[in-house]
Amino acid sequence: MSIESSTEAALAARLKALVRDVPDFPKPGVLFRDITPVLRDAAALPEAMEAMSTPFGGAGIHAVAGIESRGFLFGPGVALRLRTGFVPLRKPEKLPAATLSEDYELEYAAASLEVHADALAAGQRVLIVDDVLATGGTAAAAFRLCRRLGAEVVGFSFLLALPRLGGLARLESLGAPVRTVLEYR
Amino acid sequence: MSIESSTEAALAARLKALVRDVPDFPKPGVLFRDITPVLRDAAALPEAMEAMSTPFGGAGIHAVAGIESRGFLFGPGVALRLRTGFVPLRKPEKLPAATLSEDYELEYAAASLEVHADALAAGQRVLIVDDVLATGGTAAAAFRLCRRLGAEVVGFSFLLALPRLGGLARLESLGAPVRTVLEYR
Repeated sequence: MSIESSTEAALAARLKALVRDVPDFPKPGVLFRDITPVLRDAAALPEAMEAMSTPFGGAGIHAVAGIESRGFLFGPGVALRLRTGFVPLRKPEKLPAATLSEDYELEYAAASLEVHADALAAGQRVLIVDDVLATGGTAAAAFRLCRRLGAEVVGFSFLLALPRLGGLARLESLGAPVRTVLEYR
Repeated sequence: MSIESSTEAALAARLKALVRDVPDFPKPGVLFRDITPVLRDAAALPEAMEAMSTPFGGAGIHAVAGIESRGFLFGPGVALRLRTGFVPLRKPEKLPAATLSEDYELEYAAASLEVHADALAAGQRVLIVDDVLATGGTAAAAFRLCRRLGAEVVGFSFLLALPRLGGLARLESLGAPVRTVLEYR
């Protein structure tokens, strides 16, 4: 599910013109793709959310799950478009009620992601949302969390993907479609 | 700007029926007001965003600024309703380009909030959004950040406020109207 039609190509060009390249962040040698200019643009913001939602309009989604913190920027907007509620997947010790937790690997450390144990019901169809897909470690942990609650992960949606870092292939191997509005190869 | 009309009172009752009280979080003796059931509810989520936006519909807002992380859940949705862009106010070392920083006090520590130096232009009218207003320390830091960029803070909007903790009075003393959809006295 990458961008194919001419309308989508025009949208991708508009959004890519806004994304800002910041060299050497968060460390020397890394080129960071900064999406904050997309958020700041009153025309681009709804277009981005619409583009993240569109492929799943007929997919019978029951809930959108978004990954802290930048998945929170897009997840509720995607949920509104799909007429569903939103479930936050949070860093440890942020959610107040009973939770499930999944560990995942970072480049130099381990981290974990939590969900409220009652956030999704068995059989619910869930879309997982984040801003950027890199290695896919966090998104894969989100997938496992949703599955442990008995939910069916119907897809993933990202504003931006960096396929060279392996996350796109990794998520596609899970069997759920992956929507990426912008890809940087 | 608290809830006055009967329509608003009915909305507040519906939303309050969803807010979950979690005792002893994040520490013994504290009653945590958990808004995640509002997010999860496909009907309540747009109602909450609409209620946070409505008072500012005619205020000529140029940008909505939201505080990491839970302000990210509502800020972009409020921005869409007000037809503006969204500016994230983030924890330290998260924003990749040049930033300004403001320190603020927590109960047992200090913290700081950052904004991209080019996120707002001088004279822009800004609405600051977060989920919960407690002591107001973070929101006051957000106010100072926006002012340092030359922007005019036209108001604050919160889903939920705990006026006994002093934040409501503190923000009102700054001279900008404070919208609170739900208050727990």
